[in-house]
Amino acid sequence: MIHQLTLSDVLAEHARSRPGVTAVVDGELRLTYPELDARVTRLAGALAARGVTAGERVLWLGRNDHAVLELLLASSRLGAILCPANWRQSAEELSFVLSDLAPKVVVWEESEVAAPLSGEDWILAGAGYEAFLAGGSPDAVPDGFADGADDADDADDTAPVLALYTAAFDGRPNAALLSSAALVAHSTSLLVVRQMEPGFTFLNSGPLFHVGTMMFCLATLQIGGTNVFTPAFDAEEVCRLVDAEKVTQAFLFGQMIDAVVKANEGGKYDLTSLRFVSHSAEWDAMTSVDDSPWCRSKMGGYGQTEVAGMLTFLGLAPGASGFAGRPSPLVQVRILAPDGDEVPAGEVGEICARGKSLFSGYFNRPELNEAKSRGGWHHTGDLGRREADGTITFIGPRLRMIKSGNENIYPAEVERVLKTHPAVADAAVIGVPDERWRQAVKAVVVLRDGADASAEELVEHVRGGLASYKKPRQVDFVAAIPKKGFTPDYDALDAAHGGGGYPGT
Amino acid sequence: MIHQLTLSDVLAEHARSRPGVTAVVDGELRLTYPELDARVTRLAGALAARGVTAGERVLWLGRNDHAVLELLLASSRLGAILCPANWRQSAEELSFVLSDLAPKVVVWEESEVAAPLSGEDWILAGAGYEAFLAGGSPDAVPDGFADGADDADDADDTAPVLALYTAAFDGRPNAALLSSAALVAHSTSLLVVRQMEPGFTFLNSGPLFHVGTMMFCLATLQIGGTNVFTPAFDAEEVCRLVDAEKVTQAFLFGQMIDAVVKANEGGKYDLTSLRFVSHSAEWDAMTSVDDSPWCRSKMGGYGQTEVAGMLTFLGLAPGASGFAGRPSPLVQVRILAPDGDEVPAGEVGEICARGKSLFSGYFNRPELNEAKSRGGWHHTGDLGRREADGTITFIGPRLRMIKSGNENIYPAEVERVLKTHPAVADAAVIGVPDERWRQAVKAVVVLRDGADASAEELVEHVRGGLASYKKPRQVDFVAAIPKKGFTPDYDALDAAHGGGGYPGT
Repeated sequence: MIHQLTLSDVLAEHARSRPGVTAVVDGELRLTYPELDARVTRLAGALAARGVTAGERVLWLGRNDHAVLELLLASSRLGAILCPANWRQSAEELSFVLSDLAPKVVVWEESEVAAPLSGEDWILAGAGYEAFLAGGSPDAVPDGFADGADDADDADDTAPVLALYTAAFDGRPNAALLSSAALVAHSTSLLVVRQMEPGFTFLNSGPLFHVGTMMFCLATLQIGGTNVFTPAFDAEEVCRLVDAEKVTQAFLFGQMIDAVVKANEGGKYDLTSLRFVSHSAEWDAMTSVDDSPWCRSKMGGYGQTEVAGMLTFLGLAPGASGFAGRPSPLVQVRILAPDGDEVPAGEVGEICARGKSLFSGYFNRPELNEAKSRGGWHHTGDLGRREADGTITFIGPRLRMIKSGNENIYPAEVERVLKTHPAVADAAVIGVPDERWRQAVKAVVVLRDGADASAEELVEHVRGGLASYKKPRQVDFVAAIPKKGFTPDYDALDAAHGGGGYPGT
Repeated sequence: MIHQLTLSDVLAEHARSRPGVTAVVDGELRLTYPELDARVTRLAGALAARGVTAGERVLWLGRNDHAVLELLLASSRLGAILCPANWRQSAEELSFVLSDLAPKVVVWEESEVAAPLSGEDWILAGAGYEAFLAGGSPDAVPDGFADGADDADDADDTAPVLALYTAAFDGRPNAALLSSAALVAHSTSLLVVRQMEPGFTFLNSGPLFHVGTMMFCLATLQIGGTNVFTPAFDAEEVCRLVDAEKVTQAFLFGQMIDAVVKANEGGKYDLTSLRFVSHSAEWDAMTSVDDSPWCRSKMGGYGQTEVAGMLTFLGLAPGASGFAGRPSPLVQVRILAPDGDEVPAGEVGEICARGKSLFSGYFNRPELNEAKSRGGWHHTGDLGRREADGTITFIGPRLRMIKSGNENIYPAEVERVLKTHPAVADAAVIGVPDERWRQAVKAVVVLRDGADASAEELVEHVRGGLASYKKPRQVDFVAAIPKKGFTPDYDALDAAHGGGGYPGT
């Protein structure tokens, strides 16, 4: 027990160490850490009364809300698992999540969830949630500090506590399970790279069902800072909250930042408490520069839900050649060939990882989990390369591999080079059956409006940037590449352009 | 396996991520991370050939040396345990350590260890060590990355890897065992509070058998920085190394800093790379100010070997009332009464802890381990108080408790108040048998030269600062308090002043 530190334990310590610190701001609601701890205790009691025991799931369907953090902490207290799901999914998609996760309790926002798939144990967010919480016994589930004689009932910090659904890379969404130990480790890596300190105030302005916002929410909890919740991104409201709460960081990027700049034209709100990466002259003038490694050069790195957020940080590789930076101090990264061997620096392989912030597999997917963790390494499904200076370059999703002769060819690598040709607007690469080499590379290319390039020219362009065996032998020109989300729909491409013969099929 | 991160794993990652970074500087020797990794691989092979398997101990007896870090990393590779021991102990004390730890291999510095207790598997530091390392097979123990098919032989990161002897609080020294997981967690907390970044260069100018230096050595490893070794503190050599290696931090305090200032009179060496806490006008002028939380107000906090270094940090409690700060983000602290109940804020109890950086017990001390970890909390043996603002005040070693009526009275607390009287130079408090109350408090006091104070006056002084039942009923005036190291020799005091009747005796 001595080495345990669950999310609930983090809260229990803050309730003692930071009695006067505001933990949560959400609309009119302000909670100090002891007040948050007391509410979580009641909530855990209420959930326990509904049969939420260790390993059971609780589902949140709604916009951002302090209830998400409270439900997560109460789940931690019980050894249960909270899933904040994307509430804007179709009825069919929500139906899949419900049957996949089989949650014991669902808390949902009536105004947001279209065609609710109601159930007996559904609780309405807002007043319904408050009544549910108020009905919980404050004595049912103590805060992890028992009377010294017996702590055997404390939650295990390696047990999953958070479930986040990830992209449907195998045809259906999968819920990545993250333990307290992994979340605490990841938060600590963010504390290091973002140089977060007590007093850190984070505005949860991105969706909490996504790891990008959740990871900062949890790091803010870890350092005993203040989490400010807003239902969803609204530029004017972001300005108001940053000013009122002296927010130090928010989940903002690209067009969101532009919208905030526009909303604050004339400087109505004071945003100087916000420490952020440089963006535009107007933005830089109204905020403060963040000189932590997180923002010093370029923000970010490479990550995914399955590693609790970030696996590598650009901030740990200033001036480096790789596009993803260096690994977090709490993980190892290996670039592996399909046979499990490490590929030499400069060669492309699958980004694989091991370490303290890794997930615990997907909920209820034993076969997928075995495949993704083969050899004791998590296989991210993404391609990368170790550069000569040791930094990592992220290439793109692996998706599938083409086998030509004895060589492994990843479509993403060839696509990247094709897209650097000035005439190419978009490109996808597939494998077509080949009698001699098993498969040959075929490029499907969209040319820019008014641009022109021959197949031979494009093949030559690839040959100039990659090993010769990776060059396409055929090029099909099309008006558009079919997509699944942001990535090419390879099944549709195979059907339309004669693809097939992939290894393992 | 996916969540493992041993010290050897940290090195294996740096060897890939930081091929050009200098890991170690020691005299003429400079090693990049890949070079250090290659040497550790050979060393692990050599140790394995001598029968060092998982759980076996390796002993270092000598001054600071890069070999200490190499032996630690090789031990991690093997699942074994390195103990860097205080080599200046008497032959009798060393003999105790040898029989207590039963090391498989001893590496020792001939010039330093008085009356060596030689053995067959003793290896001389320096040339002997180099020959031993060179003889190791580079293939015997791979670096933790097996071929993907079988990683079952990798070391467990919860297994002990470092043993550090602590004070003889129960009549003999005990070797505190620290796992890779605990050391990595503690290092990460130092990265957070000291805001360490890649490029951090630490001068190991304090003894590596003490956690105060070892913890910074390991945090420097964790962030992929540079460890500079020097055999022992020498003010001129510290100046030379800081200048030559652009050292960012060294193990220095108090008189060591004054000696460095004196050695650098005239500004022969450039020490501006050193980022440190303010000390004296001369020192501040020749170094740079460290504005990280670690140094921002006062340096340090409360710690001990058993928590891998620091348990609380002053830097996490700027402007706070407690003298020890707030807990590291990776631990919980409770102030407990002898019955295991938490005492309210403002009351003194034993500082107890739980979390990621906690030790794994003492080597070969099952009964002591059970006593120290009762109720699932590590009992530090030190007294503290939670203040109203949640910060922790360190009072002093618990050592023993006086029981008067139903009340628990800790000598350290009464001594602290006695010493605030202007006439008191030193004081110790014991319990004497009392028919009615079981024990009564007796103070043994040394007055300042030329000062005078009556027993009544001193009793009144204590009554003004503490609950009345804690006041001494008798005061003995003496010329000096007998000491064991820095603390009163309570056994001698009991014998000389009629002490006895303690609870548990």
